[in-house]
Amino acid sequence: MDLGTVIGIVLIFALLGSAMTMGVGIGAYIDVPSALIVIGGSIGALMISFKPSQMKQFTKIFMIAVKPPQTDVPELIKKLVEFATKARKDGILALEGDVNNEENEFLKKGLSMAIDGSEPDTIRDLLEIEMEQTNTRHKVHGNIFNQWGGLAGAMGMVGTLIGLVAMLLNMADPSAIGPSMAVALLTTMYGAIIGNVFGTPIYNILGVRNDEETLVQEMILSGIMSIQSGDAPRVLEAKLLSYLPPANRVSQFD
Amino acid sequence: MDLGTVIGIVLIFALLGSAMTMGVGIGAYIDVPSALIVIGGSIGALMISFKPSQMKQFTKIFMIAVKPPQTDVPELIKKLVEFATKARKDGILALEGDVNNEENEFLKKGLSMAIDGSEPDTIRDLLEIEMEQTNTRHKVHGNIFNQWGGLAGAMGMVGTLIGLVAMLLNMADPSAIGPSMAVALLTTMYGAIIGNVFGTPIYNILGVRNDEETLVQEMILSGIMSIQSGDAPRVLEAKLLSYLPPANRVSQFD
Amino acid sequence: MDLGTVIGIVLIFALLGSAMTMGVGIGAYIDVPSALIVIGGSIGALMISFKPSQMKQFTKIFMIAVKPPQTDVPELIKKLVEFATKARKDGILALEGDVNNEENEFLKKGLSMAIDGSEPDTIRDLLEIEMEQTNTRHKVHGNIFNQWGGLAGAMGMVGTLIGLVAMLLNMADPSAIGPSMAVALLTTMYGAIIGNVFGTPIYNILGVRNDEETLVQEMILSGIMSIQSGDAPRVLEAKLLSYLPPANRVSQFD
Amino acid sequence: MDLGTVIGIVLIFALLGSAMTMGVGIGAYIDVPSALIVIGGSIGALMISFKPSQMKQFTKIFMIAVKPPQTDVPELIKKLVEFATKARKDGILALEGDVNNEENEFLKKGLSMAIDGSEPDTIRDLLEIEMEQTNTRHKVHGNIFNQWGGLAGAMGMVGTLIGLVAMLLNMADPSAIGPSMAVALLTTMYGAIIGNVFGTPIYNILGVRNDEETLVQEMILSGIMSIQSGDAPRVLEAKLLSYLPPANRVSQFD
Amino acid sequence: MDLGTVIGIVLIFALLGSAMTMGVGIGAYIDVPSALIVIGGSIGALMISFKPSQMKQFTKIFMIAVKPPQTDVPELIKKLVEFATKARKDGILALEGDVNNEENEFLKKGLSMAIDGSEPDTIRDLLEIEMEQTNTRHKVHGNIFNQWGGLAGAMGMVGTLIGLVAMLLNMADPSAIGPSMAVALLTTMYGAIIGNVFGTPIYNILGVRNDEETLVQEMILSGIMSIQSGDAPRVLEAKLLSYLPPANRVSQFD
Repeated sequence: MDLGTVIGIVLIFALLGSAMTMGVGIGAYIDVPSALIVIGGSIGALMISFKPSQMKQFTKIFMIAVKPPQTDVPELIKKLVEFATKARKDGILALEGDVNNEENEFLKKGLSMAIDGSEPDTIRDLLEIEMEQTNTRHKVHGNIFNQWGGLAGAMGMVGTLIGLVAMLLNMADPSAIGPSMAVALLTTMYGAIIGNVFGTPIYNILGVRNDEETLVQEMILSGIMSIQSGDAPRVLEAKLLSYLPPANRVSQFD
Repeated sequence: MDLGTVIGIVLIFALLGSAMTMGVGIGAYIDVPSALIVIGGSIGALMISFKPSQMKQFTKIFMIAVKPPQTDVPELIKKLVEFATKARKDGILALEGDVNNEENEFLKKGLSMAIDGSEPDTIRDLLEIEMEQTNTRHKVHGNIFNQWGGLAGAMGMVGTLIGLVAMLLNMADPSAIGPSMAVALLTTMYGAIIGNVFGTPIYNILGVRNDEETLVQEMILSGIMSIQSGDAPRVLEAKLLSYLPPANRVSQFD
Repeated sequence: MDLGTVIGIVLIFALLGSAMTMGVGIGAYIDVPSALIVIGGSIGALMISFKPSQMKQFTKIFMIAVKPPQTDVPELIKKLVEFATKARKDGILALEGDVNNEENEFLKKGLSMAIDGSEPDTIRDLLEIEMEQTNTRHKVHGNIFNQWGGLAGAMGMVGTLIGLVAMLLNMADPSAIGPSMAVALLTTMYGAIIGNVFGTPIYNILGVRNDEETLVQEMILSGIMSIQSGDAPRVLEAKLLSYLPPANRVSQFD
Repeated sequence: MDLGTVIGIVLIFALLGSAMTMGVGIGAYIDVPSALIVIGGSIGALMISFKPSQMKQFTKIFMIAVKPPQTDVPELIKKLVEFATKARKDGILALEGDVNNEENEFLKKGLSMAIDGSEPDTIRDLLEIEMEQTNTRHKVHGNIFNQWGGLAGAMGMVGTLIGLVAMLLNMADPSAIGPSMAVALLTTMYGAIIGNVFGTPIYNILGVRNDEETLVQEMILSGIMSIQSGDAPRVLEAKLLSYLPPANRVSQFD
Repeated sequence: MDLGTVIGIVLIFALLGSAMTMGVGIGAYIDVPSALIVIGGSIGALMISFKPSQMKQFTKIFMIAVKPPQTDVPELIKKLVEFATKARKDGILALEGDVNNEENEFLKKGLSMAIDGSEPDTIRDLLEIEMEQTNTRHKVHGNIFNQWGGLAGAMGMVGTLIGLVAMLLNMADPSAIGPSMAVALLTTMYGAIIGNVFGTPIYNILGVRNDEETLVQEMILSGIMSIQSGDAPRVLEAKLLSYLPPANRVSQFD
């Protein structure tokens, strides 16, 4: 997963870099003030758009996109089915030890409640609130990058307009027109690169990650409800396997 | 919170200002008639788009974006759990004093109804209408700024077209072409700055604030329902903590 | 309300007009064939987009945006609470006289049915169909203006392309290039003005008006249901006041 | 209805045609290869986007937009109320003759099932599937024209880029630049005309037609349910009239 | 179906190719570095946007668009009705042989469960999870192509900006300006072609295919529920035929 993101970023910059080198050299495309306008300006606009506590997570979210936490779904199904089997044989209290060693916080919380004898409706309520809130927080995270793309593009346009106005007021020396306009276009280029390498794609992958986590949470919720109501493990497994693409469905009962 | 908005605005104008100064000086970018077309024109279009009573709140809403009313959520959870504990021990009438001192209008209203013995369904009905209407009003507020961004951009384009036509009809003196076109572009630049500093970002942050308030109201509604039905305070706390990100969950029972 | 729309339109045209006058004079911006292409062309496209019976209401809808029918909401609440009080004391038949004098058709219809002894479910059914259909009709009305904005912009672009092609084929006389291109740009300018003064803003305000009317109808439906089921007037008032912003809530019982 | 579409199309082409004639003559705007790129290219992209069986209906759908099948709604209400009256007096079997002569397939199907003694839930189920599927098919039809607009615009841009590249590689003869660029712009113009005369407007009117048909089907479904359950014809009529705008409501009982 | 896609692609490239040949020859439009920037850059951005396991299916999904798996819907209806008839006469166990030969995995799974005596609610649950997950996976597939279109367009713009900057810095030799700019425009052209031949249209057809498959699955689910509850085959057929357009409805009972 991280591999895809890293290869994608490297590939893009390698291609753009060699295109620049082939023409007038990569140095002509680097202009610190232009970069400051686009990056600083768009991050300034993001600081207006979101709360400081949300903005602080900027790099953390970026890292989640690049190096996402993984859940091994077939492993999860196996574990839930084992829990169901054990609970059916020895009672739900037999799961106490497993819960303490469980690393997935969502599963741990739900299962503890089931062992403590909470009502199924209470457990479902709590886990659903948690799922919804997690989802909402992820949406905000994705939105930061989505907005970044749009705002970087807009700041790039503002920078180009500033440069164009300066150029238009200094047309006495015709030989300066080309280079001035070239510099003016750099902010638009920076804005487009930020938007289409970091903005939209990071927004997309965060959405994919959120869908994955929501799926895992749905499966866990489904599993806990089954375990508590004492469903047959085979039925639970059939249900959980329905969440997977047909090719990945391997039953431990076959 | 206010800090983020203020730093963001200052950062953007510092960057744009220095970019202007480095070129032809900031004075070349200031043109009062152009600013009037974009600001006045877009506010005129907003006056067509919304009711005067909605437009009157323009600066008030802006201040909410910059300096939002805060609710201390962990404090709120603590308070609701305390209310639940007291109501369970001494009956719901014991909360009468607390209600009178309560500053959150939504909590005060719901709790008063519960103490007055209103039916749970009636309380839920009323509070849900209030939540929905608050949400609707906030949506309109955000929409004013969202529309402002779009309309300022459009008025900027109209201003540039007016300037371009004037320039095209006066091409006898070639040395005037550059400066005329520079002025014509200023309205587009103003429109883009308004849209991307005040339009979209203020719209975004108002949405974030609304989500926060809705969350607080949902938690209060959930709390009042629990208090009235005499739920165990521990269960209520567990439910309310589910609304928070995992890292912020601190139980007063541990 | 009408005032806002009128001031907005006047403000925009005053600003654009003075910008035109300051440059080459307002006359240079008036070109009847260009205006015909944009206005006629976009209205032609609207005639394809909507039914003649919908298009016939074009000016009528425009007048609703400019001079909307008003409902005095606090007055409505007062009236509904009075009806509830009377019905509770003297029976629902006591409202017969009030119904005959009632001007709001929606309230009149619902209340007549209640007096005639229709089932609550039947009344709710009918009034909800009516609300939904009203809403749907209003959406179509708003959509006419929304589409007008987009189509006028597009026809403006087509007009500019027609002008550009003509200019490009007649470049023998360089002194004619400027004026030809100036005229070509006028259609784009007309399209942008129509879209951003009449299109989007009228669409917006019609949405605001529709939300208002829906709110009033919801309150009336809520009131009729309460009156018929003999709810306490105080409870009805509390419910209706929840629809208002907190600052506007004045109870007649306090 | 057809009249509106036809007048709209004629009006647009008359205006655009005279604008062309006033300048360099309509002949300069006709270029068969350019038209082929835009029309052929966009239809090619549509063939990738939809199934052949959907594309085959292209002209049929266009004719529905231009000459829509009409349902006389007041007549329909009258008929449904008559059916209800007859069924209430003489039993639902008395409608057998009317059903055989009924031309509206949806009404015929539903009524036959009612006469055959099908369960109300079965009838509702079947008619709702039919309504939903009709709606889905209409959405696809509208979408073909919506996509056509976008794809024609894009193909117009590709055509202009092809022309621009050719022009830029042949700048030796300056007198050829204008005409070359004029031809290059034609594809953009064709794309904009297709999109804004045939694309968006046909998409719009198909949506309006679909809303109409859905409304008629909802009224019929409502009517059949009432007839089967033996509701009073007056109540049925009141319900059906609620679907109409207030001005069009004429009761046959008054 | 495949035919439509193939004809569409061939038609577009034939038209664009002849337009290129008519001007400066097709060779002038082929530039490998430009193509690499657009194709490689957009695929790099896709690799950031999606998981490697999703990207691996890129060509497989493309082939589904070009050569989709087909379900013969009338045949399916016939089969489901036959199953219902058999199950009604000889009991549901009589279908065991048919299930083993069934090729449609969804039908096979649902019917096996029915034969194994699973509860109707359990079967519905499982099949609905499967339908929803299939749908979600298809949405991701479509989204890859939708995003490809947008990102290819953006990378085309970045490429053009890189070329423009290089050209603006090398204006000493005026005769080189035309060709440089021509090459710079090629990336924009490539981006537009990818977006409007492979991006949007493939996204569209994948949506059409998904709707088809969802419809088939809904019909199968409906059929299995009917078979299990022992509904009359005639009623089941009537229900299934409602999913078809009126012209395609042929009953085997007539």
